[in-house]
Amino acid sequence: MTAEQLIERCRLLARFTEQPGVTTRTFLSEPMHGVHAQVRTWMEQAGMSVSVDHGGNIRGVYGPSAAPRFSIGSHLDTVPNAGAFDGILGVVLGIALVEQLARRRLPFGIEVIGFSEEEGVRFGVPFIGSRAFIGDIDDYLLARISDAIAKFGLDPNRIGEARASSDALGYLEFHIEQGPVLESFQLPLGIVETIAGQSRLDLTFEGRANHAGTTPMHLRRDALAGAAEWICAVEREGRAIPGAVATVGRIDASPGASNVIAGSTKVSLDVRHADDEVRHATVNRLLECAHQIAAARCLTVSHEQHLDQSAVAMDPFLTRQLQLAVESAGCPVHRMPSGAGHDAMIVARRMPTAMLFLRSPGGVSHHPDETVLAEDVESALNVGMRFLAQLEDRYA
Amino acid sequence: MTAEQLIERCRLLARFTEQPGVTTRTFLSEPMHGVHAQVRTWMEQAGMSVSVDHGGNIRGVYGPSAAPRFSIGSHLDTVPNAGAFDGILGVVLGIALVEQLARRRLPFGIEVIGFSEEEGVRFGVPFIGSRAFIGDIDDYLLARISDAIAKFGLDPNRIGEARASSDALGYLEFHIEQGPVLESFQLPLGIVETIAGQSRLDLTFEGRANHAGTTPMHLRRDALAGAAEWICAVEREGRAIPGAVATVGRIDASPGASNVIAGSTKVSLDVRHADDEVRHATVNRLLECAHQIAAARCLTVSHEQHLDQSAVAMDPFLTRQLQLAVESAGCPVHRMPSGAGHDAMIVARRMPTAMLFLRSPGGVSHHPDETVLAEDVESALNVGMRFLAQLEDRYA
Repeated sequence: MTAEQLIERCRLLARFTEQPGVTTRTFLSEPMHGVHAQVRTWMEQAGMSVSVDHGGNIRGVYGPSAAPRFSIGSHLDTVPNAGAFDGILGVVLGIALVEQLARRRLPFGIEVIGFSEEEGVRFGVPFIGSRAFIGDIDDYLLARISDAIAKFGLDPNRIGEARASSDALGYLEFHIEQGPVLESFQLPLGIVETIAGQSRLDLTFEGRANHAGTTPMHLRRDALAGAAEWICAVEREGRAIPGAVATVGRIDASPGASNVIAGSTKVSLDVRHADDEVRHATVNRLLECAHQIAAARCLTVSHEQHLDQSAVAMDPFLTRQLQLAVESAGCPVHRMPSGAGHDAMIVARRMPTAMLFLRSPGGVSHHPDETVLAEDVESALNVGMRFLAQLEDRYA
Repeated sequence: MTAEQLIERCRLLARFTEQPGVTTRTFLSEPMHGVHAQVRTWMEQAGMSVSVDHGGNIRGVYGPSAAPRFSIGSHLDTVPNAGAFDGILGVVLGIALVEQLARRRLPFGIEVIGFSEEEGVRFGVPFIGSRAFIGDIDDYLLARISDAIAKFGLDPNRIGEARASSDALGYLEFHIEQGPVLESFQLPLGIVETIAGQSRLDLTFEGRANHAGTTPMHLRRDALAGAAEWICAVEREGRAIPGAVATVGRIDASPGASNVIAGSTKVSLDVRHADDEVRHATVNRLLECAHQIAAARCLTVSHEQHLDQSAVAMDPFLTRQLQLAVESAGCPVHRMPSGAGHDAMIVARRMPTAMLFLRSPGGVSHHPDETVLAEDVESALNVGMRFLAQLEDRYA
């Protein structure tokens, strides 16, 4: 299969959508039936036996079903108004690798898996597919998603069967970078070393709402001005720490009228780093800075933490194999963290996991303009075949 | 009448409301009938003949209706969830002054006027009452407010009759300061010299929305970070220029998610100063600063101007009379600009106008906690009587 054909397959799947004209496909929504039918056909053509587990993941097994398996995959759901490659590419690439084996048997099974859910759009909870795969669906979550599973024709009470067997060999995920780093270095591929940890908080600066015309500058307690000073500090801190990103993406100033000084301003904070200690120290410095700014302005500031997710390291052995494959394919080696969460982050809790990024032109993702270069897909296919050959040697 | 009784009258009028439990009384809303009935009673008790003009202003005339008149007043409408004194105090104080004359005739008529509308809540257009008083209701505005006028029992086609006669002597408005300046100086009264001019603009910074996890700091075009830097500059500029206020009270960052870098951020700007040249220069510097910030960050910035309202000077002769009255009442003289717009700003376009501020405890206004000190009301009554006596000497 050529890279162009592989890309064409991704674009074909993008036509299965809840919203005509754009691509929107949430957890076990109606169009996922069409995606499964198409993926099943491709999998069977490549010699796989196909099933859909009760978490909604489509799974094609190549080779003896009794042998330990190595899994390759990503997710088949999308954000609203999505591109064609986020997630999908990793599944289609896994099928293409099996196709290229041309029915040659390996000493282990290969399972290509299309996870039912990663984006978290339908229920506000991401990674449902990969959580089912590692046996991490709690009763509370199951109760929320049961109806959707049953309506899709599956049995929520059997979701435990989706769990990977304990002799699983590992998991490899191909994914578009969804960022501009590889492109900025003119590199086709990136070997993910770590999926960065994340802190998410909300901060609220409280001052006093007052008339913008009658309150002199020196008698103000302007919550928005205080928040603005802090947003500048967040950006400085993010720039100062190698490998960190720090973002304020949401702001709400109240009462929010042009002629009223803001009495209250709520802002979000998102900090990510591959090293949890660095991340925690950064968040603490930013909170301290917020308190200093508030004190100097006769404001108060409070915060709520919504997420403190640890960094997840990829498996050293598999990552080394990936690097050897990249080298032998004649591609430059670039190791990097992933700033976004991926199914690989979940799966890594249960089995050795590795991840390969493909360059995202323009850094664009979660947008219809999201794309991928045919030459990069060709490199990824080449790396994947070499990676499997290396595993073949090891498990021979 | 004591100051306490006068304050009690204001609190009584606050009970006429569209919303039970709070005070909300917009242009010619139902409860304005009750206010008019009460004000009419007080006016008639003080010896005035009362009418409501077809702009909805209640007008009590004291003395010969043929003689030129001096007007004293303010507005009777309120913002939603208002206090008891904004506007109302000026009308009730005017009635109290006439009452204190105890039917003694002056060489000129006195008209106490309660304007129907100043806040702009019902139709988004402020100063409807005082605009009718100076004959400045255009056909477009009249068409919008006609139904409300007719429903109140008045005739919108006769709104021209509300216009003050051409031999009007002048207008005096008492009003709470609605700001913290007099309180910060421990002063009861302030003589308004100028009503500050205002500029209102919206600025939109445009960058590129991107993933907060995958986009390194140096490859971002973060519209919110750019806007935050500019908000800090607005505050610095406001502080640096004596007598200026500069405010960003509204901000909208898009898409507004905690894990997405803002691609676009819209902010309001409100700049006021008694000197129009200073104000225009300030706005221009802030726009230039916005362009510099945008250029340094690979953002673009655009702006829309919504208001460029010139400063309005109070009449020098009447203001001098007011100052003499303040001095002879034994109060400290403090001349100041008004940062907020008032009916006096509109009336000044047609006749000599003066304005006296009463201290606002806590600087609080447009809030149920809005109040006024009895001792300050007593001082204002005292100043008002002396002011009328001075006019009596002049027109004798």
